[in-house]
Amino acid sequence: MVPELIVSAVGAKLSQESGILELMNDLGETVALRPDMLTLGGGNPAEMPEMQARWRVATERLMADGDAFDKALSHYDAPQGETRFLDAFAALFREKFNVPITRANVAVTSGAQLGAFSLFNLLAGRTKEGRVRKILIPLVPEYVGYADMGIEPGLFVGCPGVITYPDPNDRAIFKYAVDFDAVESALRREDVAAILLSRPTNPSGNLVTREELAKLDALAERYGAFLIVDNAYGGPFPGIVEDEKELESVFWTPRTILFYSLSKIGLPSLRTAMMIASEEIVERVSAMTAILGLANNSLGQRIAFPLVASGEILDVSREIVRPYYRKRRADAIEILRRECARVGLDARLHDSEGAFFLWLWAPQLQCGSKALYRRLKEKGVLAIPGDGFFYGLAESDVELHDPDFERSRTQTLRISFSSSEAVVERGLRVIAETIAEMTTAR
Amino acid sequence: MVPELIVSAVGAKLSQESGILELMNDLGETVALRPDMLTLGGGNPAEMPEMQARWRVATERLMADGDAFDKALSHYDAPQGETRFLDAFAALFREKFNVPITRANVAVTSGAQLGAFSLFNLLAGRTKEGRVRKILIPLVPEYVGYADMGIEPGLFVGCPGVITYPDPNDRAIFKYAVDFDAVESALRREDVAAILLSRPTNPSGNLVTREELAKLDALAERYGAFLIVDNAYGGPFPGIVEDEKELESVFWTPRTILFYSLSKIGLPSLRTAMMIASEEIVERVSAMTAILGLANNSLGQRIAFPLVASGEILDVSREIVRPYYRKRRADAIEILRRECARVGLDARLHDSEGAFFLWLWAPQLQCGSKALYRRLKEKGVLAIPGDGFFYGLAESDVELHDPDFERSRTQTLRISFSSSEAVVERGLRVIAETIAEMTTAR
Repeated sequence: MVPELIVSAVGAKLSQESGILELMNDLGETVALRPDMLTLGGGNPAEMPEMQARWRVATERLMADGDAFDKALSHYDAPQGETRFLDAFAALFREKFNVPITRANVAVTSGAQLGAFSLFNLLAGRTKEGRVRKILIPLVPEYVGYADMGIEPGLFVGCPGVITYPDPNDRAIFKYAVDFDAVESALRREDVAAILLSRPTNPSGNLVTREELAKLDALAERYGAFLIVDNAYGGPFPGIVEDEKELESVFWTPRTILFYSLSKIGLPSLRTAMMIASEEIVERVSAMTAILGLANNSLGQRIAFPLVASGEILDVSREIVRPYYRKRRADAIEILRRECARVGLDARLHDSEGAFFLWLWAPQLQCGSKALYRRLKEKGVLAIPGDGFFYGLAESDVELHDPDFERSRTQTLRISFSSSEAVVERGLRVIAETIAEMTTAR
Repeated sequence: MVPELIVSAVGAKLSQESGILELMNDLGETVALRPDMLTLGGGNPAEMPEMQARWRVATERLMADGDAFDKALSHYDAPQGETRFLDAFAALFREKFNVPITRANVAVTSGAQLGAFSLFNLLAGRTKEGRVRKILIPLVPEYVGYADMGIEPGLFVGCPGVITYPDPNDRAIFKYAVDFDAVESALRREDVAAILLSRPTNPSGNLVTREELAKLDALAERYGAFLIVDNAYGGPFPGIVEDEKELESVFWTPRTILFYSLSKIGLPSLRTAMMIASEEIVERVSAMTAILGLANNSLGQRIAFPLVASGEILDVSREIVRPYYRKRRADAIEILRRECARVGLDARLHDSEGAFFLWLWAPQLQCGSKALYRRLKEKGVLAIPGDGFFYGLAESDVELHDPDFERSRTQTLRISFSSSEAVVERGLRVIAETIAEMTTAR
């Protein structure tokens, strides 16, 4: 007889239906079982032929380097990461961007997701003294993959972004801005361990400005909090941003904790991320790596090592990755506008300043974005309903806030443009048609 | 100013000094910074030239297979694992060993450590209804890497093994046996979610017999618990066991949860493990993979796929891995005996039935194994003090138990024989000499 499965409270929380699970299951299932699906859903990066060629060559060189490959395969790294890689990574930031760090300030983790899980649960939650510390998200919507990471419930406090229109006469393009009053009010109200944002923001492609960043840092300083910036898509690598200046400098203060990853530069399957933080945080996170996972996969570090050590990782970001995604972004926006015009759909698009998503807001969508997601999946198109990216919001805050923001929470769709051109074009056509149908039907 | 680091209670628990952290740090540090160190410490497998050649060829074939390698690098798998690999793995167990499973019963995790972290915290800890569920370890000493995995304190309940002497006239070889009275008493006393053992046992190399396993399974059934068997070193692969029969069949019942790993067959750095469990547990563990780490590294699955699909993984275990470690074991035992005799040390060795460790008990060691560990490290030899492998014990139980067992808790050393022959020989000599010195000095 199979024993009854009785799950712990923590187990229930960490294994529940979550936005990130649905997204990752869709993604994996599609690749394996429904290759005809038009995947504009998950966060898989594009297959960039030039980058694939670079990683292939890097792997071939590792394999040709005596027994380096064999040794890499057959040895565990220390939990913090491989020493030479840590040194090279710290030197890159120190020498090119004047970030005053050494190896002791870098922790490799098996992807930024696991690094974030360790860090957020280290900093936030209940302390031995009974404090209940929080992670503050200054601009919601924010990455759905953070939402369920808390071992304890209620780890995140979010502030709704202010919907603005860069061109006041044209509502076709909108942009979220940080509501600093809301942020400061949350800092006063809650015991905040860290302020957290992805930059550019997954899902909206918002590039919170350097001025906003500096103001958040000043608030972090005033309230004794850390400032965590997740650069998964940002500069100096992989450089999936419109503004070239983002590749030229790194925003760093003694309070910042910076996430970087090899995923969006072409190695998502190798689960390799780098966290820059204080020595004591790096020690703690590395200790958690040992307990949770023993060590990291080391092949990502070995394959990327020469590109990090030589600084070539910055060159390929500037010369290959950024131009590639700029073109894909411009094409996707043009196609979506054309398709919306064709079906007479008056939708709004977030200003796409980085990452590889369009964040579409259809104010006519009464049935909700989850119904839209299901209908699209039936039609063979995957895109992500926006709902899951809105979390940590105190309902009272939202009510006091912009009613447009409140409505938009169930009217948005995150559309990736990282699949092939043909898939993106067909997918966007179906998306425009389907929204038009679903809004007319009502 | 750097904010004060205030850690959560959970963060403190999961980032504390732990046995597994010390072990992994020693291991990584040694490889990188002290290559002259004689490493008889961590759990790194041997560099088996024949297996390294196999993995190299498998990698070369993947790279030569059109764009299969490029696609593998540039795509996330679903959190459960890669579909073709899951199918092949389930088919291997179904067809060769009559284990009635499909893909839905297999979860890939980024190493068995992370799989265990997910599973143990899913099954044990506080439930919403206020039950406090435990993982029962029927035979302590047990793997040090489990000890600190509980998100909640006190996750493990351990039962001390009974020290027996296979040859009653010779105390040079001892063996732990399961104390079934203690196990049943713990099952009655505690709310046990699962019984857990590694088989062969890390650290002692004990192969809990099939009869003992069947009795544990019967107890699991009676008390509605799962039986988790960690086969990291066992059969049918990698097959690091003395008894050839272990490679011929798999102990499986509807209650068993089986851990397998690619680490000890030569791919520790690729962090790839496979858990066989009920569909609902696989679903939950996969959901936790999504939240904790998004997806697994997929290269391990891709490189190992042909060996799993063809069943070759069983052949190499039988023809390469098992004979390799049998010879290394026999050599190590002979050297250790010789060195002990040379310095006049009367030490006891656990019957080495599997895994790649010698478990040495020096009853004369008054100063404790931690002092021995530090002294050995000063002399350039790494071995692991046994203390960390004794956990989950209620002190009252131990007192009622064998006083020899109680004393042995601070008199044991786990010695790996997976490093090169020369390193093992020199290391064993220093170990024997050092114990002799430290016991004479007192």
